[in-house]
Formats: sequence, structure tokens, C-alpha cells
Amino acid sequence: MGLRYAGSARIPEATVRRLPMYLRVLADIPDHRREITSAELADLTGYSSEQIRKDFAFFGALGTRGVGYRVDLLQRQIRGVLGLDRPAPAVVIGAGNLGTALARYSILQDRDIRVVALFDVDPARVGTEIEGVAVYHAEEMPAVIRRLGVRMAIVAVPPQAAQGVVDGAVGAGVTAFLNFSPVKIQAPEHVHVQNIDLSLELQSLAYYVSVRSLP
Amino acid sequence: MGLRYAGSARIPEATVRRLPMYLRVLADIPDHRREITSAELADLTGYSSEQIRKDFAFFGALGTRGVGYRVDLLQRQIRGVLGLDRPAPAVVIGAGNLGTALARYSILQDRDIRVVALFDVDPARVGTEIEGVAVYHAEEMPAVIRRLGVRMAIVAVPPQAAQGVVDGAVGAGVTAFLNFSPVKIQAPEHVHVQNIDLSLELQSLAYYVSVRSLP
Repeated sequence: MGLRYAGSARIPEATVRRLPMYLRVLADIPDHRREITSAELADLTGYSSEQIRKDFAFFGALGTRGVGYRVDLLQRQIRGVLGLDRPAPAVVIGAGNLGTALARYSILQDRDIRVVALFDVDPARVGTEIEGVAVYHAEEMPAVIRRLGVRMAIVAVPPQAAQGVVDGAVGAGVTAFLNFSPVKIQAPEHVHVQNIDLSLELQSLAYYVSVRSLP
Repeated sequence: MGLRYAGSARIPEATVRRLPMYLRVLADIPDHRREITSAELADLTGYSSEQIRKDFAFFGALGTRGVGYRVDLLQRQIRGVLGLDRPAPAVVIGAGNLGTALARYSILQDRDIRVVALFDVDPARVGTEIEGVAVYHAEEMPAVIRRLGVRMAIVAVPPQAAQGVVDGAVGAGVTAFLNFSPVKIQAPEHVHVQNIDLSLELQSLAYYVSVRSLP
């Protein structure tokens, strides 16, 4: 199982959100470079060296002064912490434009998260495939999720349907959701819901237009 | 122009990101409630009272001890700070599944940001409409952006096309981007680029599956 993080303390959410970025920049380090310093990582990520050292200390990665961190070890550790060292099957609930775009994106661009099924209620979509992955009827969702051992779901359904599909998926064993529906989802304590709210993103974006057009 | 923020100090990005959430919860306050305390806002948003008071102080909203903030005034001030008290026209670059979903979402769900045009290079899409909004050829982008006075753009093109369309839009006057392409965009100092990286979101989500399935 490799270097899975198994301490009892949880890693802070902000650190978890930064870990994939470290993976991305580490993947671009030339093969002949065996070590990297927190200062170099700071340059590449935009986070401070101090922040980086703190983040890494959460899972016990300690650099050597003047030398830095071993690139391959760091990659293995971060992948272990994130649970990316074993398959991470996910489903996409809602196969409209957004669900289709998200599924296609994950299937084509992301080697770590494997979308294994989509669900929809529209007869025109059920039974079709997106990049080779089947769209099932939402009624089949609990059975398919159980059969494939899925723990992650991406929610891309209309707001009024979101709570219902989350309840169904939680009942079938899903413990982590990426929610694109602009509603507040209720979920049991042990379930993690990460919200992407496009409306909030757009409204905060307006600030930068506004400030920059001041006389 | 109302209560536009016109101080010389910039408001921190983290505060700007929270302002739309305050607007959302304030919109749900019953009409007969004229004041709201930071403690009540803390309950509704999940941010701490202290954080809320700090955020509001950036634009001079000061509550009254034991009474709180005037709801209507606070709404006007936040809308002013965000520049939502005047029309915020935006364009969507890329009219594939993701661009179409984003445009439809903004058009139907968001009263503040007005999507006024989409752009694409696919002849099958150019000349069509999405919820009544025209899809233009990407070649027409600079002219359309100038004609409609657009300052905001949502980027939903393939990675290899992203930098080019951003350059073109910046040249035509766009100063704020919401970028969904998984590439690092280069832009001049005065331009704000907000990235939504689905791949990073999915990878950090995997952590929560991983932690919760530990024995």
C-alpha cells in the first residue's frame, strides 16, 4: 500500500487543496533533478516556502537543509496522502452539458480519477456512452455504485434534484462529493462535500472589473 | 453610482471571495428583519464572527454593538464593492459542452452577470444561439467585446487554445477572466485571472475518500 498517511490527526483542508498543485509542479521537474528545495517549489507554485514546509510536515516529509526534498519520495508521499496510489473510481450524476463536460474532462485529462459511470433520467441520454463510459438511468445508481465500489461522485444535476441524488449516493457508500449544483447539500458527518459555486465565482470576479475601471 | 468602494487600498482576495456568500445569505433574510448580527451571519455562512467583522470593515461597514448591521445597507455596500450595482456583461469563450453549460447557467441562474456573447471556431456552433445569446466566430471576438464594452470573460476552450484567446480578449479590453482550461495563463499585471482547475479539485477530493476508508 506504500506510504499511505495513517496518522490519527486530519490534515487541514487548505493543505489538502494545495497537495495536487505540488504534484503538478513536481511532475514537470526534469528527470535528472533528484532534489528540490522549498524555495524552488515556492517559485513554481506561488505559495511561500514556509507554507510549503508546513504542508509537507503534516505527512512527515522533512527536507534536508541546503539540499531540499527528494522529488520521487515527495511524489510518492503526496500521492499516498491523497489516496491516489490506488484506483479512485468516480461517478458523474447528471449527464447534461455540464456533466458531460466534466466526465469527458476527467476521462481524457486526469489519469488519477477514473470516471466509471454517469447517471441521468433523460431517456435520450440513458444508454448512450461518453468517451466509452456508460450513462445509466438514475434508478440504477445505488446498484451500480455498490457494484463498482465507488466512493466519489460529481454532482451536476439541476438544483432541485441535488439533495435527492446525494442522499441516494450516500446510501450506496459514496463519501466524497464535488457539487456543482448551487444549493447547500445536507450530508452526514462522515461525508465530505466540496462545492464549486459558479455564481459565487462570477460575482467575486466582478470585483476585479470594478476596481480596475475606477478612474 | 451608489456606494462604490473607492478607497486606494485593495480588498484582500480571500475577502472578495467571501462577499458573494454574504449577499446570498442576506437575500434570504426575511423582509421584517432590519438588522443582523455578525453572530447570526456566522451561523448562516460558517465563517467566524470575527472574520465577518473584519471583512466588513474593509469597506467601512461597522455594526452597532448588540444590534448588528442594517441588512439593506449591507447589501447595497457589498453590491457596490463588487461592482454589481451596474451591469456586468461577460462573454464565454468556447461553446462546447462546458462553455454551453456555463453560459446557460449564468443566463438562467445569475441575475448579476449578463452573458452577452459566446465564441467558438466550430462552424456547427457559430451562428447558433444558447438561451437567446449568439455564438460568434472567434475571429469576431475583439470587435464584439469592444462593441459591447465587455470586461469579463469565461474561458472554456481546449488547453492549447487558452493563451491565444486570453491574449485576444485582453487586447480588446477584458480585465477579468474565469479560466476553466487546465493551463497557467500569462496575463499583464492589470488583468485578474481566477482559475478553476477541475483536476486539482478532483485530486483533493480523493483525500477524503482515502481518509474515510482507513480501517
